[in-house]
Amino acid sequence: MEPDYAAGCAYTMDEYVPVKDAHISILDMGFSRSDCTYDVVAVWDGGFFRLDDHLARFARSCECLQLRTPHTLGDIATILTECVRRSGLRAAYVEMILTRGVPQAGERDPRRVTNRFHAYAIPYVWIANEDQRARGLHLVVARSVERISARALDPTVKNFHWGDLVRGLFEAYERAADTAVLVDANGYLTEGPGFNVFACYRGQLITPADGALHGITRQTVLELAAQIGVAARVGRVEPEMLTQASEIFLTSTAGGVMPVTLLDGQPVGDGSPGSLTLRLRELYWQAHRDGQWVTPVDYRTPRRVAP
Amino acid sequence: MEPDYAAGCAYTMDEYVPVKDAHISILDMGFSRSDCTYDVVAVWDGGFFRLDDHLARFARSCECLQLRTPHTLGDIATILTECVRRSGLRAAYVEMILTRGVPQAGERDPRRVTNRFHAYAIPYVWIANEDQRARGLHLVVARSVERISARALDPTVKNFHWGDLVRGLFEAYERAADTAVLVDANGYLTEGPGFNVFACYRGQLITPADGALHGITRQTVLELAAQIGVAARVGRVEPEMLTQASEIFLTSTAGGVMPVTLLDGQPVGDGSPGSLTLRLRELYWQAHRDGQWVTPVDYRTPRRVAP
Repeated sequence: MEPDYAAGCAYTMDEYVPVKDAHISILDMGFSRSDCTYDVVAVWDGGFFRLDDHLARFARSCECLQLRTPHTLGDIATILTECVRRSGLRAAYVEMILTRGVPQAGERDPRRVTNRFHAYAIPYVWIANEDQRARGLHLVVARSVERISARALDPTVKNFHWGDLVRGLFEAYERAADTAVLVDANGYLTEGPGFNVFACYRGQLITPADGALHGITRQTVLELAAQIGVAARVGRVEPEMLTQASEIFLTSTAGGVMPVTLLDGQPVGDGSPGSLTLRLRELYWQAHRDGQWVTPVDYRTPRRVAP
Repeated sequence: MEPDYAAGCAYTMDEYVPVKDAHISILDMGFSRSDCTYDVVAVWDGGFFRLDDHLARFARSCECLQLRTPHTLGDIATILTECVRRSGLRAAYVEMILTRGVPQAGERDPRRVTNRFHAYAIPYVWIANEDQRARGLHLVVARSVERISARALDPTVKNFHWGDLVRGLFEAYERAADTAVLVDANGYLTEGPGFNVFACYRGQLITPADGALHGITRQTVLELAAQIGVAARVGRVEPEMLTQASEIFLTSTAGGVMPVTLLDGQPVGDGSPGSLTLRLRELYWQAHRDGQWVTPVDYRTPRRVAP
């Protein structure tokens, strides 16, 4: 009998399993040193969104960490598709992971370890819940913690080093907010747990250039803004620019474009989601329907990769 | 039939398993956010070394991260002892881990997740191999990467955020060395992958006060130095103090006191392990025989924790 993949389907150790049965060895350096990278691509209405861009970023991340995937990008696309197909999910959060792997007993040298590929598809994840998305998120600029420096860890290489971001989340909760954005050692804005941040400041959109992931949703927003003639750029963002912003929104593969309506306890603009934000959110979901960036999933045809 | 625990015995999801069968869910935030803490205690010649100190540090780490272990420290001691007993190992590397746990589908809030305890005993791990320990380690001060700042992540809370340390290791290999010590944003020395560093500078021992784990082997060395009347302190250590040091050594639960004989390609002192280093190494292992800090393992009596 076919296992039940409705809660999610994973691929690990060269086989497909229900996601609840997908594990990492306790000895995998991907866990014990967080020595791994990953990427997340969304499936919406039965199609991947910007799959090639996510695969390309994943390949670059692997290369930067001197990790080697046992699969070609084509085979990874096949595996991700098969995870989605088996789950039957029309809206999915699809993650690919490459871990350093399990060393031989006593081995400490990461060069001598065989890297391991894992993937899974689970129901689409929103970093903000329905209520938060409707009313707009309540954001704080974290005071108790700063973002891990790019000189210590390259934030453009997607990673699980979330200790600072999690501490930022706890601070947000203590301050009765939903989430937090972190600053770097110089006090400039970077990013938050799972998202990039945009401000509409003096009529232009701006998002931090440094200290942040080059988010694919961020990139999509920059491209959509250009299409509708709205000036948008990446640059240095000071907290004061957020305070004075007429609109703020977050971008993430896990939720798209999400308005922020309260910053450090103060209303952003008139305290309701901004008009440009709502327009970009509409265009973002419209792009999912248009199909330009969409790779449809064929749910009827099983696919295999060569072992 | 009793499983074969000779390669190591783990405790996870409330049962004992051979370490090769010990896993973390791919959805555990301990993996996907590196939201976890751990500690490592050594067993030498059938006894734990400074077990209570390791347990106390682990408890503090859990508290700092707002993680709650399902076990008392007494029960954790019992579990660790049982892992060692089942493995039969007389010299073991014993790790305890608390992960945030597996969230409900779609849940992003770490406060709403049940934390999970894991532990294992495997054969004693040396961060330097036999040859390296005999000739002395070849160390570099990393140039390509700096240590994650204490303002982003508290280094006294033991964690798996090793991206910077792994990058330091790769740099060491590229520079034909064995391992690397990292500096902070101000250029002061911190620590390396799995160890603290000591310099004998102007006749006194010094080890970095900030940006480093409060290692229990480091503490042991400070106490042993005091016993033999050698001045030793924690303080700010500049790379130049390493360059000018008459001796350098590393300390770790995974190896004890390990001499460094080459720094950035230049000999330390006369290029052989220093006399004070060797004396402290001898005292360190002597302390394991003396029994003051030792908790013997009873290998014959199975132990249980209440479920």
